[in-house]
Amino acid sequence: MDNKKKIRVGLIGCGFMGRTHSNGYSKVSNFFPDLAFQPVLQAVCARREERVKAFAGQWGFKSYETDWRKLIQRDDIDAIDICTPNHLHAEIAIAAAEAGKMVFTEKPLARNLEESQKMVEAVERAGVKNMVWYNYRRLPAVTLAKKIIDSGKLGRIFHYRANFLQDWTISADLPQGGDAAWRMDIDVAGSGVIGDLLAHCIDTAMWLNGGIANVSAMTETFIKQRVHLDTGKKQDVGIDDACIFHCHFQNGSLGLFESTRYARGHKALYTFEINGENASIKWDLHDLNRLEFFDNSVDSDVKGWSSIHVTNGDHPYMDKWWVPGLGIGYEHSFVHQVADFLKSLETGETMQPNFRNAFETQKVCEAVVESAKTKEWKETGVEFKG
Amino acid sequence: MDNKKKIRVGLIGCGFMGRTHSNGYSKVSNFFPDLAFQPVLQAVCARREERVKAFAGQWGFKSYETDWRKLIQRDDIDAIDICTPNHLHAEIAIAAAEAGKMVFTEKPLARNLEESQKMVEAVERAGVKNMVWYNYRRLPAVTLAKKIIDSGKLGRIFHYRANFLQDWTISADLPQGGDAAWRMDIDVAGSGVIGDLLAHCIDTAMWLNGGIANVSAMTETFIKQRVHLDTGKKQDVGIDDACIFHCHFQNGSLGLFESTRYARGHKALYTFEINGENASIKWDLHDLNRLEFFDNSVDSDVKGWSSIHVTNGDHPYMDKWWVPGLGIGYEHSFVHQVADFLKSLETGETMQPNFRNAFETQKVCEAVVESAKTKEWKETGVEFKG
Amino acid sequence: MDNKKKIRVGLIGCGFMGRTHSNGYSKVSNFFPDLAFQPVLQAVCARREERVKAFAGQWGFKSYETDWRKLIQRDDIDAIDICTPNHLHAEIAIAAAEAGKMVFTEKPLARNLEESQKMVEAVERAGVKNMVWYNYRRLPAVTLAKKIIDSGKLGRIFHYRANFLQDWTISADLPQGGDAAWRMDIDVAGSGVIGDLLAHCIDTAMWLNGGIANVSAMTETFIKQRVHLDTGKKQDVGIDDACIFHCHFQNGSLGLFESTRYARGHKALYTFEINGENASIKWDLHDLNRLEFFDNSVDSDVKGWSSIHVTNGDHPYMDKWWVPGLGIGYEHSFVHQVADFLKSLETGETMQPNFRNAFETQKVCEAVVESAKTKEWKETGVEFKG
Amino acid sequence: MDNKKKIRVGLIGCGFMGRTHSNGYSKVSNFFPDLAFQPVLQAVCARREERVKAFAGQWGFKSYETDWRKLIQRDDIDAIDICTPNHLHAEIAIAAAEAGKMVFTEKPLARNLEESQKMVEAVERAGVKNMVWYNYRRLPAVTLAKKIIDSGKLGRIFHYRANFLQDWTISADLPQGGDAAWRMDIDVAGSGVIGDLLAHCIDTAMWLNGGIANVSAMTETFIKQRVHLDTGKKQDVGIDDACIFHCHFQNGSLGLFESTRYARGHKALYTFEINGENASIKWDLHDLNRLEFFDNSVDSDVKGWSSIHVTNGDHPYMDKWWVPGLGIGYEHSFVHQVADFLKSLETGETMQPNFRNAFETQKVCEAVVESAKTKEWKETGVEFKG
Repeated sequence: MDNKKKIRVGLIGCGFMGRTHSNGYSKVSNFFPDLAFQPVLQAVCARREERVKAFAGQWGFKSYETDWRKLIQRDDIDAIDICTPNHLHAEIAIAAAEAGKMVFTEKPLARNLEESQKMVEAVERAGVKNMVWYNYRRLPAVTLAKKIIDSGKLGRIFHYRANFLQDWTISADLPQGGDAAWRMDIDVAGSGVIGDLLAHCIDTAMWLNGGIANVSAMTETFIKQRVHLDTGKKQDVGIDDACIFHCHFQNGSLGLFESTRYARGHKALYTFEINGENASIKWDLHDLNRLEFFDNSVDSDVKGWSSIHVTNGDHPYMDKWWVPGLGIGYEHSFVHQVADFLKSLETGETMQPNFRNAFETQKVCEAVVESAKTKEWKETGVEFKG
Repeated sequence: MDNKKKIRVGLIGCGFMGRTHSNGYSKVSNFFPDLAFQPVLQAVCARREERVKAFAGQWGFKSYETDWRKLIQRDDIDAIDICTPNHLHAEIAIAAAEAGKMVFTEKPLARNLEESQKMVEAVERAGVKNMVWYNYRRLPAVTLAKKIIDSGKLGRIFHYRANFLQDWTISADLPQGGDAAWRMDIDVAGSGVIGDLLAHCIDTAMWLNGGIANVSAMTETFIKQRVHLDTGKKQDVGIDDACIFHCHFQNGSLGLFESTRYARGHKALYTFEINGENASIKWDLHDLNRLEFFDNSVDSDVKGWSSIHVTNGDHPYMDKWWVPGLGIGYEHSFVHQVADFLKSLETGETMQPNFRNAFETQKVCEAVVESAKTKEWKETGVEFKG
Repeated sequence: MDNKKKIRVGLIGCGFMGRTHSNGYSKVSNFFPDLAFQPVLQAVCARREERVKAFAGQWGFKSYETDWRKLIQRDDIDAIDICTPNHLHAEIAIAAAEAGKMVFTEKPLARNLEESQKMVEAVERAGVKNMVWYNYRRLPAVTLAKKIIDSGKLGRIFHYRANFLQDWTISADLPQGGDAAWRMDIDVAGSGVIGDLLAHCIDTAMWLNGGIANVSAMTETFIKQRVHLDTGKKQDVGIDDACIFHCHFQNGSLGLFESTRYARGHKALYTFEINGENASIKWDLHDLNRLEFFDNSVDSDVKGWSSIHVTNGDHPYMDKWWVPGLGIGYEHSFVHQVADFLKSLETGETMQPNFRNAFETQKVCEAVVESAKTKEWKETGVEFKG
Repeated sequence: MDNKKKIRVGLIGCGFMGRTHSNGYSKVSNFFPDLAFQPVLQAVCARREERVKAFAGQWGFKSYETDWRKLIQRDDIDAIDICTPNHLHAEIAIAAAEAGKMVFTEKPLARNLEESQKMVEAVERAGVKNMVWYNYRRLPAVTLAKKIIDSGKLGRIFHYRANFLQDWTISADLPQGGDAAWRMDIDVAGSGVIGDLLAHCIDTAMWLNGGIANVSAMTETFIKQRVHLDTGKKQDVGIDDACIFHCHFQNGSLGLFESTRYARGHKALYTFEINGENASIKWDLHDLNRLEFFDNSVDSDVKGWSSIHVTNGDHPYMDKWWVPGLGIGYEHSFVHQVADFLKSLETGETMQPNFRNAFETQKVCEAVVESAKTKEWKETGVEFKG
């Protein structure tokens, strides 16, 4: 592997996403041996030294930092990967871009459209490589959906629907804020399910079905007050617990999106379905190795929804793993994203989704927030045409 | 059976619904032998004599008519059952009520709120028994859902979602109007999927989860012109091909409804799901003998969605049929509705859903139509509190 | 309907099967209006007058008897339909044949091969129409399986497997014998799951995949003694509670069959699967309106098990019922069998399965019993070649 | 990580299983950071230098060998892990044991009982740690099944059934022998599906349900001759393509096993089901993150098969991975096995399954082979009582 070109990564944040990314970097060369580039776990950064040191040891980072500004200035770092809570994305990303580093950030791009715009401008001005971890595109079944849609098999599209249903915040005893519950804190997260969950749905949807033109949304906060870990006091909850919106895509199809953390019985039920004139596709994260496909051209009496177990050698990414029938897991999407990024360095093609793509997603999120607030339809201003 | 009191039925219309109702009447005494009342297939009425005569022979009606006004005046008829296209519901129902007959009508109650109101007033003024064939309430799995919800097992309700997806009108060659395609003709049907499909979803939803307070809707007509069978010419299509709306229920839960005839791969996919604090329920018409139930009080490590095959003797209606594991079909819901109606005559309890209940459903439909037109939220004015 | 030729039926037995058959006779003309023949519920017979009288009233039989010998002698009866416990099949069928009646009998044909043989000889000697109620052939999904197999789409067959799993006899408190528990009494039933459940599996299997050549079986009686309702005392249980066998079909494929009444969680889980070189098929009675189909000729990346909702107008029998997506139930298989029998009278084709076909099934059952007893492979002696 | 005790592994073989094991070793410390021991990828060995060198580079092995005898003699190796074709298991394992190394081997233990016995004797004589990679025990859903069974929730067991269905050898063009197709060569593999697939089923079965006492089996070789890659000529195929057997477990329950490589449509469909007096469990490798559970103590009207998505923090191993709802894949079972082995070094408990356990599994395989050959029931001689 010594002849591979090294990309020295500086990772900021060592929570859940710090782990998924670290795993992606450390696995990619085992399973994608033909890549010309190889990531190196050069440094990890987090505020608490004890924690970051342990994390560095666990994952094999060569060094660690407790101040992200210092990390960004290091000469031995090629890429900054941001796994912090959302409120730090913009500041770090802009600084990293200005320091000439490649910049990767967890989704959503930022807390709001304004921050997002500055980030896009920063990376484009600096001319640095950038990407956002909308990882679900890289699950083989989802990539296969894209491939089928791009083949034209669906014909004119009539409907797209997606939801992301969870149930982990139903208890009124759950706090907000602090390290443990920053996703519940409006100042840190920027929104509730909109940025956390719907952003995934929107990214996938626009990748598969083109731009969303306008939206009509509603949101709800079921539990109005929760103890804030920073103050120890009950405070108003600012995030949305649930959000529903319908929309028009630019191609004329109707969209329907729902997300909540109050759907008892669903842990991470991300599903989407697309209905075309000639064929339809369904997917469900709880069965992530499957894709359901309905092909209307099949003989009438044996026509039905086909359950494709996306584990064959000719399925996306699956020549890299095991044998037909043996499934992979959630984390593999991150390995694939690393592989695709490294490949893009080789080919010179623009990696997607990058900050620019994620900015379009952010426009839809912002329109959703606005529509829910004003109870009116909102134009998204999304520019690309799918 | 001679000691049973007879209800002599005059059925108007001999299409699809004429068949389901006739079957309901003819089967009920075989499977519900303990009822004090028994329906008699006294007469059937339709415009074309040849057709109605054949239908009478096929189903064992004692006589037939070709003019519904004549049928209504007959002394040997106790109940008028309306299975005509929607535009005739109001006129016939009002006349039948004025003639002192019991009145049953297929759903939706009428083409619009105005007609509906007159019908409610007519039956209530006349003091005649009345009901509307929102048959899905009487599928055992749906009735079981009601029973579970009424038991309080779900706790506070957060979400209700339902859809009714079909794919039979995708072809641009399909005509509108005439006997064959009256559901595609705005003047006859009153609306598209709203009255045909969403009305079912709304009836079930308000029965299970209480009144819908306000709605925000969108509709679409994908194919703008179709040949009209009455004129032979291409004419504008007035009905909605698809409709999506979200809403607030009076109990504070969020609702989400979608219906379309352009969801390739779905024939009659009526599904609903309700998420409560402590439990959730799902149902799907394509698997009509099952109910999915998630009970959060189960031990954490073995907790999951439970697939209830609703075919046990202690499940609703199922002591009347076969043995556990042996499913029943769609048409049985009509048999059950007849049985429940006959039982209500015995007990004196008010049969549901009656015209009054269906009028509330119609209010929601009307608000949906209005909201889609104006692109604004609409209050439904629904009065009951679930 | 007066121009239809009448088949006046005398039904013996008014238990579960008496109900399914009565329903079949009474529904057939409603849903198959074009048949030249029509069954008439002429008489029903059972020992206890009160019960048979009530049954006659409930189902609309014109008369009743309490002695089956008397019924057989009546001039106004064209067909005798035997729904008694198994031990009476042979005696009644032979007498009915000798009286020149058409003879129908519930499955299994008889308690054992010897009785079966006499029955076949009797109907063939008398030259009377005859059939056995292996009703599952007439569920649309099963009939569709037959159609697909006959089309040759599967290619060379490698495997056939079927099971019929129930859980209703697990309690040691369940008695044997009497009217209520005759299926648990070896003298009346002849066997346990072999005749009751595996006979269904074998009938379907040989219809779909040809003759079974030889078998290797095991049986088990889990609960060795149960109270006998005739004596009130605990007595040895003679029936098999569970049976497993593997076999060779005459076409060289391997067969695997299992049945039990001790599979906790399964009510009536009759499933079969057939694997061919080019395609495979699966079916499950708990989802009786579906057929699963795997077609290996589909493009590799979208190939999968297709879930066919067998409710389209071009699916077997389904043009007679409702619209696509609306399922039918268990009892419809009996309606279809009546319709096919009446049609066979019209066309002159031999109705299947008849006594001769059921005799072949009985040979396999007998070989299974013998194999389990001797712990050796047994040749079945089945003659037909599929 | 420097304070962890190192286990220096020498891996023999760099095919499919070489990859799964290497991944297990390299991932374990990332996800199980609290273990006192850590595996080190010290050396990998395979005959062809170019290939083994590339593999070493890809996976980060410190060195490589082309002669396994040399590897075994190296002082810097603590454990030998055998991933070769089956015919080399015995020789290498015995030599490794004699050299005082820990010995791990892929399943099946060996080609036959005789080889297996010598291997057990060798490791027990040498007193070296040993284990066999029956990895499926370590999928969280399977481990959960074990936990539920051990809790006694199932009560008396009546039935156990398992199958392992594949379809990859249907083409007559597939060769036998050589590196590519050694699983098709009787001399190298020892058997067909029996050792390759049924051995997995038997290992799981006896772990969950205790010893198998006796068996009655059948086997088939559908394609009688295939080109042998060593000779280039068509030669008789010696392996079994398919095998079915039924059996008695020592606890009195009935067992049913089937495996084939000719089940069109199934890639790696390993399923098992166990039916007890009070509860039942089902599992399916194609949905490896789920366990189906039927608990008869649930209220009658809401009782059903519960689909447990085994991804919660309190599910086996799942506290080490992601968050509820996010599934893992096939390869994680190997990571878990490494973790459990390392833990056993810490606690001093005997690792299972070891050679002794796998020897018991081999006894059943041998009895199956013998039974199929002689067409008679065979006692297995299995000693443990579950």
